[in-house]
Amino acid sequence: MAQFLFEHRVRYREADPMGIVYHAHYLDYFEVARTEALRKAGLPYKSLEDDGLFMPVVDLAISYRHPAKYDDLLEIRTRLTLSESATRVTFDYEVVRKGEKDLLVTGHVTLCFFDRKARRPIRAPERIVSLLNEFVSGENA
Amino acid sequence: MAQFLFEHRVRYREADPMGIVYHAHYLDYFEVARTEALRKAGLPYKSLEDDGLFMPVVDLAISYRHPAKYDDLLEIRTRLTLSESATRVTFDYEVVRKGEKDLLVTGHVTLCFFDRKARRPIRAPERIVSLLNEFVSGENA
Amino acid sequence: MAQFLFEHRVRYREADPMGIVYHAHYLDYFEVARTEALRKAGLPYKSLEDDGLFMPVVDLAISYRHPAKYDDLLEIRTRLTLSESATRVTFDYEVVRKGEKDLLVTGHVTLCFFDRKARRPIRAPERIVSLLNEFVSGENA
Amino acid sequence: MAQFLFEHRVRYREADPMGIVYHAHYLDYFEVARTEALRKAGLPYKSLEDDGLFMPVVDLAISYRHPAKYDDLLEIRTRLTLSESATRVTFDYEVVRKGEKDLLVTGHVTLCFFDRKARRPIRAPERIVSLLNEFVSGENA
Repeated sequence: MAQFLFEHRVRYREADPMGIVYHAHYLDYFEVARTEALRKAGLPYKSLEDDGLFMPVVDLAISYRHPAKYDDLLEIRTRLTLSESATRVTFDYEVVRKGEKDLLVTGHVTLCFFDRKARRPIRAPERIVSLLNEFVSGENA
Repeated sequence: MAQFLFEHRVRYREADPMGIVYHAHYLDYFEVARTEALRKAGLPYKSLEDDGLFMPVVDLAISYRHPAKYDDLLEIRTRLTLSESATRVTFDYEVVRKGEKDLLVTGHVTLCFFDRKARRPIRAPERIVSLLNEFVSGENA
Repeated sequence: MAQFLFEHRVRYREADPMGIVYHAHYLDYFEVARTEALRKAGLPYKSLEDDGLFMPVVDLAISYRHPAKYDDLLEIRTRLTLSESATRVTFDYEVVRKGEKDLLVTGHVTLCFFDRKARRPIRAPERIVSLLNEFVSGENA
Repeated sequence: MAQFLFEHRVRYREADPMGIVYHAHYLDYFEVARTEALRKAGLPYKSLEDDGLFMPVVDLAISYRHPAKYDDLLEIRTRLTLSESATRVTFDYEVVRKGEKDLLVTGHVTLCFFDRKARRPIRAPERIVSLLNEFVSGENA
C-alpha cells in the first residue's frame, strides 16, 4: 500500500525544558504530512474547501516510544485508509529519525467528510473516492 | 472519585478557518488542567522536576464530538488514575461548554514517572503515591 | 489612564530548552490581555466581528529584558490608545512577575479597524470610539 | 549583501477565523529561516548551544502590510548584520508570496550572545565573528 514520506527538522520552539519535542507538536507534523499526501493524491485540501467540503478531525491517538530532540531530522510516514462507507478517512503515522530504524512515535488521525452548506457529515464525493483509492493502491509517493 | 474542574476561554489564535478550535489545542487545555489538578493535589509539577522527576507523555487519545468556537467558555473536567504498579498516571478528560450538558470532546493522556539522572522510567516515590491516592479518593476539587 | 491587569501562569509547552518562555508566546499573552481588556470596555471582540468588523494587527514590537520561567505567575499590564483619526488602536504592554518590580518584557501591538464586507480599513464606528474613550479615561480596570 | 531564501507553505493551524495567517506565526517562520541561514553559514545553532552559547532574543518588530492565506507558498528573505561590538546579531526579514513582488510582511529580530555557564551576555567568539562576516559578504545563499 502506498506510503507517503515527509521530512521535518525539529524547531527550537517545539522542544520543551526536557530538551525533547513537546508531545502536542506531533499533531502539527501529522497535519503537514497529511496535507502533502493529499496534494500528492491530486486532492489539495484547499480545493476541497473551495468545493464546499470540510474535513474535521473525528478522533486520534498517539503512542510515544522514544523522544525526538531539537534539530533532529524526522521522517514522518503516512498511510491512509478510506472507511467502507466512504464517510471517513484514517491516516496512520510512523515517526523515525531519518536513516534510523527505531520508531519514535506512532499514531493515527481520523477525519470525516463534512458538507459546509448542509452542515452535516456526508459520504465522500465519487471523484474523491476514486483519487484516494488510486493513491492507496499506488506506488510509494 | 475526585474530579477537577478547569475553565478556559477559547482564544482567537486557537480557532481555525472553519471557525472552530483546531484539534491540537485540546492538548494544551489538557496540560493546563492537569497542571492545576496536580497543584491542587499538593504536587506542583515544577517541584517534581526540582526533585529529579520528569513526567513524559506515554500515550493519548482524543475523540471529537462537537466543535467549540472562538470565545466559548469551556469547562475541562479531569480525573486521574494511578496505575497498579504506580509507574504511570492517566488523566481522563471531558470538555463541555460551561453550563451545558453536551460533551464536546473526551480524551485521556497517560504519563510515566521518569528519573532525570538515571534516565529511565521508575515507580512513583511513596510521597507522590500517597498524595495522588488522597486526591483521587477526595472530594471534588 | 486606565490600565488593565491580566495574570498568566507560564505553561510547560511555552518554555523552551533554555528553560525560559519562548519569545513568540508573549504575543499570545498580549492577545488574551487585549481581549479581556476590550471585554471589560464593553467591546467583546466577538461582537465586533459579528457586527462586520475585523481588527487585524498592523504592527508590533517587543523588547525582552529578563526571562520568565516555567510556572512563573506573570502579570500583564495593558494600556490602550486610540489614534487621532480613530482608524487604529495601540495596546502598550508591560510584563512583570506578579508581586515583583522588574520589567521582564515590554511591547506594543497596533490594530486597525477593517470592514469585513467592503474589505478595507475604516474609521472606528462612533459607538466604539465612545466606549474606548470611556475606558481609556476610566479608573484602573 | 548575502540574502538567504526560505520557503514555507502556510499550514491550516496557522490560519485564523479571518482566513489569514495569525500574526504571531511569522515569528515561527523567522526562527526557521534564521536557523537555516545559520546552518548555511556553517553555524548550526545546535552546535552553538553545545559549545556553551545561548542566543536569546533581545528585541523584535514586525510590520504587516498584506495578509497571507492558508496554503500560500511564502518566500522568507533573511539578511543578517553583526553589531559593531559583536555582541548582537540582527536578522532582517521580508515575506512575499513566491513569485510575486508585493511585500506582505517585514520585520527584524535581534539576538545576543549569552554564556551559558557565566550566565551573562558576551562578545561573540572570534570563530563565530569570522563565519558570520564571511556569510554576510558572501554570495546569495
